[in-house]
Amino acid sequence: MYEIPVTLTQNPKKKPEDESKLGFGKIFTDHMFVMDYEVGRGWYDARVVPYGPFVMDPATTVFHYAQEIFEGMKCYRRQDGGLQLFRPRDNFERMNRSAARMGMPAVDVEQVLAGLIALLKADADWVPSAPGTSLYIRPTMIATDVMLGVHASHNYRFYIICSPSGAYYPKGLAPVGIYVEPELVRAVKGGVGFTKTGGNYAASILAGELAKQKGYEQVLWLDGRENKYIEEVGAMNMFFKINGTLVTPPLLGSILGGITRDSIIKLAKHMNLPVEERSLTVQDVFDAAERGELEEAFGSGTAAVVSPVGRLAWNDKEITISGGEIGAYTQKFYDMLTGIQFGSVQDPFDWVLKID
Amino acid sequence: MYEIPVTLTQNPKKKPEDESKLGFGKIFTDHMFVMDYEVGRGWYDARVVPYGPFVMDPATTVFHYAQEIFEGMKCYRRQDGGLQLFRPRDNFERMNRSAARMGMPAVDVEQVLAGLIALLKADADWVPSAPGTSLYIRPTMIATDVMLGVHASHNYRFYIICSPSGAYYPKGLAPVGIYVEPELVRAVKGGVGFTKTGGNYAASILAGELAKQKGYEQVLWLDGRENKYIEEVGAMNMFFKINGTLVTPPLLGSILGGITRDSIIKLAKHMNLPVEERSLTVQDVFDAAERGELEEAFGSGTAAVVSPVGRLAWNDKEITISGGEIGAYTQKFYDMLTGIQFGSVQDPFDWVLKID
Repeated sequence: MYEIPVTLTQNPKKKPEDESKLGFGKIFTDHMFVMDYEVGRGWYDARVVPYGPFVMDPATTVFHYAQEIFEGMKCYRRQDGGLQLFRPRDNFERMNRSAARMGMPAVDVEQVLAGLIALLKADADWVPSAPGTSLYIRPTMIATDVMLGVHASHNYRFYIICSPSGAYYPKGLAPVGIYVEPELVRAVKGGVGFTKTGGNYAASILAGELAKQKGYEQVLWLDGRENKYIEEVGAMNMFFKINGTLVTPPLLGSILGGITRDSIIKLAKHMNLPVEERSLTVQDVFDAAERGELEEAFGSGTAAVVSPVGRLAWNDKEITISGGEIGAYTQKFYDMLTGIQFGSVQDPFDWVLKID
Repeated sequence: MYEIPVTLTQNPKKKPEDESKLGFGKIFTDHMFVMDYEVGRGWYDARVVPYGPFVMDPATTVFHYAQEIFEGMKCYRRQDGGLQLFRPRDNFERMNRSAARMGMPAVDVEQVLAGLIALLKADADWVPSAPGTSLYIRPTMIATDVMLGVHASHNYRFYIICSPSGAYYPKGLAPVGIYVEPELVRAVKGGVGFTKTGGNYAASILAGELAKQKGYEQVLWLDGRENKYIEEVGAMNMFFKINGTLVTPPLLGSILGGITRDSIIKLAKHMNLPVEERSLTVQDVFDAAERGELEEAFGSGTAAVVSPVGRLAWNDKEITISGGEIGAYTQKFYDMLTGIQFGSVQDPFDWVLKID
């Protein structure tokens, strides 16, 4: 087992009083988990310390060449007051896949999980309890060499910070309007689209701002090769229910293999809802809508869990999905997943890890 | 005019004694230029201050979503001891094009140029004088919001740091071996390949490491759509001389519009060497080699100026270019460009800005 030294803060912050106003990712807890890496030495100094700033040289690799990866997960407070995580090892294993593509070192999954648990024990009082709230967890790895040559850094910092958070989408489960981005591309096969690296998000920001200006909440990304296959929505995976079958784009290298995506596929099979992982074009979706076969559409991700899509705009056309309401299965997936995550629904998949 | 307040260091560092051992981007000068930005307020507190670390919250946007751009330029010491820059406004204008694509604020070109000049005056003694050495200049902009939502940051830091540097390639102008990357992709049309943003470099690191393991110095990138058109080499633009004509890929959005690239095109026209900006496949290059028409090949960039390519490997084939030696025009471009940059050759293009 891993012994993680813990240094508790001498100056605890004031915790947020109104849990209905947490927002997302704005408030941070009293502690963080940190460890450092050097080629030849491996990871060292794994520790829980008071949350505080990093002192960084302006020439540090992460500022110039964005060698950086992250994960997103949550800690949930059960009705009985206990805490639990949802598939945490899957997050750290995905982080290692990101690391391999970005030329960064792998972490020991059991070590960082031990670090996370030590951190959560130090910050247990920060996990909110109001309905729908949770403690958002952000594992991050950044390149920390101080030099300007373009190469895999020899030094890295891995850290985990936590943020008590409300619903990701301020409007909650209300259906959102989605805009199909016609020109700007997020990722392409052979690139880094399947990783959670900062550059994918940086590349997406402009399209997100343009969509908002047009009155839509999110961007639907098309593939970078032919500009017609559906890839992701904002920073979520995309699902459609077409003629009784759940359809989601396959993992071919340009989209993130979401843990929520995987959970929904497994839940659908568990519910005997047919699921297909297959490429589909935005034309396919509009054709299905015209035939009256497009029954539901939603995005999936850790932050939002599921985000129903009520409107989909493509060039000069716009369709309304599920009458602009939440689809029945969309609601079911949300209820089952959040039920398992918060411990109010039995977990048949062994997804939950209790922190007690 | 811009008045840039200067705070000189009280603790000057020891300058490198042996200018033949500077390397690239490892040593930094005594000062830096810094200014900050806030939406609604604009850029503020432009200042030259002692070089020193940034104190940054672990939740800062740049660590998670890589909203970051940079530039690369050099300050040259003339034979008469004076200092000069090469097309500095072009760098800052390109930085503004990068900023627009990455959802970041533009800088005032004349303000940052004034900041750079104030910095160079403070650090004038750091500009080396040994042949081939120069002061590498790194303007950088990073997103500094402290929160985890994915959106354009509301706060940014722009800074310039400087590094006395030797030749970028330790072997100097000696021809390098290049490896055509068959699978991994750097950028695609509609993406951010034309910007100098960190994510492009992060995405390139793994292929660079793999090429080195195979015994090649650099990677030749193919396009992300059809995997056959030549894009860039490492972090440089690519030129071929085929049957008396200089050919370089056009700027269609996925490759960087290099200032050295533009300078070479203008120099070639000045020398009455035919130049074509046109798409060409790696097959075209191998076919030209087979016909005996592939005369020269080189990369171009600020750090290396030109980097002759002696060997080009693609799948199981490898060709030797210019008999593995430096091509005549490659040498000419290097001599003319470095001559103009260091002030030993007359500048017919008004490219040089003297700092006196």
